[in-house]
Amino acid sequence: MSTIIRIFDTTLRDGEQSPGASMNVEEKIVLAKQLARLGVDIIEAGFAISSPGDFESIKRIGAEVEGPVICSLARARKEDIDRAWEALKDAQKKRIHTFHSTSDIHLKHQYRISREEALKRSVEMVRHARSYVDDVEFSPMDATRTEISYLRDVVEAVIGAGAKTVNIPDTVGYATPDEFGVLIKGIRDKVKNINEAVISVHCHNDLGLAVANVLAAIQNGAEQVECTVNGIGERAGNCSMEEVVMALRTRKDLFGADTRIHTEEITRTSRLVTKITGIPVQPNKAIVGANAFAHESGIHQDGLLKERTTYEIMTPESIGLVKTNLVLGKHSGRHAFRDRLKKMGYELSDDGLDKAFERFKRVADQKKEVFDEDLEAIVSDETQQIQEVYVLKHLRAESGTGITPVATVEMQVGGRSVKQTGSGDGPVDAVYRTIAGITGTKSKLDAYLVKGITGGTDALGEVTVKVEEEGKKVAGHGADTDIIVASAKAYVNALNKLEYWKKGRAKNS
Amino acid sequence: MSTIIRIFDTTLRDGEQSPGASMNVEEKIVLAKQLARLGVDIIEAGFAISSPGDFESIKRIGAEVEGPVICSLARARKEDIDRAWEALKDAQKKRIHTFHSTSDIHLKHQYRISREEALKRSVEMVRHARSYVDDVEFSPMDATRTEISYLRDVVEAVIGAGAKTVNIPDTVGYATPDEFGVLIKGIRDKVKNINEAVISVHCHNDLGLAVANVLAAIQNGAEQVECTVNGIGERAGNCSMEEVVMALRTRKDLFGADTRIHTEEITRTSRLVTKITGIPVQPNKAIVGANAFAHESGIHQDGLLKERTTYEIMTPESIGLVKTNLVLGKHSGRHAFRDRLKKMGYELSDDGLDKAFERFKRVADQKKEVFDEDLEAIVSDETQQIQEVYVLKHLRAESGTGITPVATVEMQVGGRSVKQTGSGDGPVDAVYRTIAGITGTKSKLDAYLVKGITGGTDALGEVTVKVEEEGKKVAGHGADTDIIVASAKAYVNALNKLEYWKKGRAKNS
Repeated sequence: MSTIIRIFDTTLRDGEQSPGASMNVEEKIVLAKQLARLGVDIIEAGFAISSPGDFESIKRIGAEVEGPVICSLARARKEDIDRAWEALKDAQKKRIHTFHSTSDIHLKHQYRISREEALKRSVEMVRHARSYVDDVEFSPMDATRTEISYLRDVVEAVIGAGAKTVNIPDTVGYATPDEFGVLIKGIRDKVKNINEAVISVHCHNDLGLAVANVLAAIQNGAEQVECTVNGIGERAGNCSMEEVVMALRTRKDLFGADTRIHTEEITRTSRLVTKITGIPVQPNKAIVGANAFAHESGIHQDGLLKERTTYEIMTPESIGLVKTNLVLGKHSGRHAFRDRLKKMGYELSDDGLDKAFERFKRVADQKKEVFDEDLEAIVSDETQQIQEVYVLKHLRAESGTGITPVATVEMQVGGRSVKQTGSGDGPVDAVYRTIAGITGTKSKLDAYLVKGITGGTDALGEVTVKVEEEGKKVAGHGADTDIIVASAKAYVNALNKLEYWKKGRAKNS
Repeated sequence: MSTIIRIFDTTLRDGEQSPGASMNVEEKIVLAKQLARLGVDIIEAGFAISSPGDFESIKRIGAEVEGPVICSLARARKEDIDRAWEALKDAQKKRIHTFHSTSDIHLKHQYRISREEALKRSVEMVRHARSYVDDVEFSPMDATRTEISYLRDVVEAVIGAGAKTVNIPDTVGYATPDEFGVLIKGIRDKVKNINEAVISVHCHNDLGLAVANVLAAIQNGAEQVECTVNGIGERAGNCSMEEVVMALRTRKDLFGADTRIHTEEITRTSRLVTKITGIPVQPNKAIVGANAFAHESGIHQDGLLKERTTYEIMTPESIGLVKTNLVLGKHSGRHAFRDRLKKMGYELSDDGLDKAFERFKRVADQKKEVFDEDLEAIVSDETQQIQEVYVLKHLRAESGTGITPVATVEMQVGGRSVKQTGSGDGPVDAVYRTIAGITGTKSKLDAYLVKGITGGTDALGEVTVKVEEEGKKVAGHGADTDIIVASAKAYVNALNKLEYWKKGRAKNS
């Protein structure tokens, strides 16, 4: 029988720390529900004390998402742990994850305290967390650059104080598999009370070794993996959930370990994370890249036709990658539409279904064939909807070589209709300047992304923009067969999210 | 003293096998010159027999690129090796790389020959290649799924026949670091004549383990690494050059090995490969991702301000990543323009400089600030220019909500001016349908990509399209502050490349 490795997903916490990846509460709930469908064991839903948005996300995910343990991060400080508990207390299954640096380089330059003091704080705060909940995890930050015997002392002390999971992070992505395996083995063999806790690992990918380090740790006794969907996270990101899960599954012969992940949900989860965060997956990304199952060389294609296993070690079906089928057209009815969505895993309220169906009809009018990908864009617009202060009513843009791009935009602003014309360096710039003029926004445009389109320019164009105001970054999305209209929708969506955040902040302060 | 690991770059061969990555001869020469500046030891410039384009690329790279050994791939067949030699014979330093499958699964299902027969062919073809050149490399394809004692027999036999390098490929990306390290150690320890050859490795990234496998091989005696820039290649791609190079450099304490790579050229090389192939790098890619050196968390930022090494194991400067500086504006002169290009590593002919400067002036007219990235787009248009059958003269597009997108396009087709108006599902679709009407192209649009833009919609938009005709795929590029104009340029560029290819084919047949 294989050992079951626990998957601790931190897409909503470490993943959200990717520059520009901030998600709003509604988006986090949509993603948490998908993580539950995927079968992760623990969801790190946020860092409660860091912002009112994180706090609310943890609270609502705890109330609305069934299945996984819901976890909040907390520094080894009383106020952090109290706040984490506030956010978690109504959840069915809950965990507090507290951490303190243990490396000399961090203690000396950043924390300016002694090893003894760091150990004392860690133990006290684990005890404090245990006063609220049994399920407490502790991480000695920068463990891979920590003096080894001190690291083992800290691990032993926090287990003594009641930590049920000890997580060994390679915070700066410095370790190599051999080294990291030896580190975990040392903890397994030499920490006296280690059997009272689960060993977890958390690896960053700065040298491209996160997945290999995690696998080496599993071979040496780790039983929990902290990871993110698509490997997003600080800097070069975290261990990629889909890679570690599929490596264990494909090489079960070697690792003798497996996870509870429903791998058929991997592709859908990966796409949802891209859509919500706006962070694309490169075509040559392992498992979920667009080319991961594409065979280009004539020699390989010849082999595959004769026998699939000549060049294929996993099937695309195993990760839920099915050929995009032509599913619906302009004559498809509401019933067929709902059925198809259900098969894709979306269940909308009656009201949501009505609105999505209306959108579908508009899209079907514009293009003959509506694919699953188009449906995902339509539904994701619907499921992530928030109250709209700004509504785009009408848009017209003209541009070309040798002429100044001009746009006319009509919007509803708090019920009032406003129409303006403006110009810019290109049609998107003209539209954005005009919208900025109408809304009077003080925000700054941080990034503008168009999703790569396969198979023709009549596909539904999807645009993501990142907008910043007063340090708050939000992503906006828009889809349309007209890239200028999709761009306008994305910008208006982002501005609405900013307004939503400002209202929430006013309420919380 | 550290062992020097040879970098065998196969971006132009295995990298080009990424779906849609085909490059034309001019693009391959530009890239090969940059690989030489980067300091790679061997450039696998193509697979001579596979196409006239590959043949010509190898020949011209051999004639025009100084420094690295130039290599052609060849199956273990006489005609392949003869053709490789034809392409290579004028190069200063040259290598023939021949291969044959050795795994039972390949021999049985694909090749339908016995192990003995495969060994015999391999030995004969190494001898045949040696009749042309001393520097011969042999790869037993699918080595990681080959019966181990047979694999060692093959290695010993080809070394006996004169192979100077034996390359062990993990063709399907199945191996794990421990396993692969043991495999290489076994070859090192048990193949009698192993000291007469260099052990090389070639790892695919299907399970996310390519870099870790390569590093394990180096620890067990491998002295050459086959890799690609950005890790592109078949399916999930190859070992990523920049990751293995920076892992060796950063953890020299552990590996005691280094390469001859000038790491300061890594960022520029990575961007050039993205530009030429149209394959983007995800933001969380190790080393060359846009976020690889971005620190988002408040805790990390605090640490960095106190002491960089708290959260940084490499400096951005070490890979040539310098802040994009405001360099030029509309009042900058030709001299400043040339100087800046020179600092960026581009030296254009007088004629090329004139044309690029003209473009720069047009861009500077449209936007106030011209960044290094904009200059790269301008110059890359220039350096990759091919003879144009189609020239875009004038374009005007109009679209919006509730109206049918319309485009008017004027083009020069073989000297004759043609103007047409057409409509489509969006303005890009309208423009593309109109261009297709004017040119009468039979090609199919495969993919449409807009490069992510940071810092505002007045940035130079870069569009890449992939177009296919009769099984030939080409990528076209276009840059403009107007996304519709950039889209038109990219499409026209692709159509010109297709025409160029057709002319070449007519000449060769």
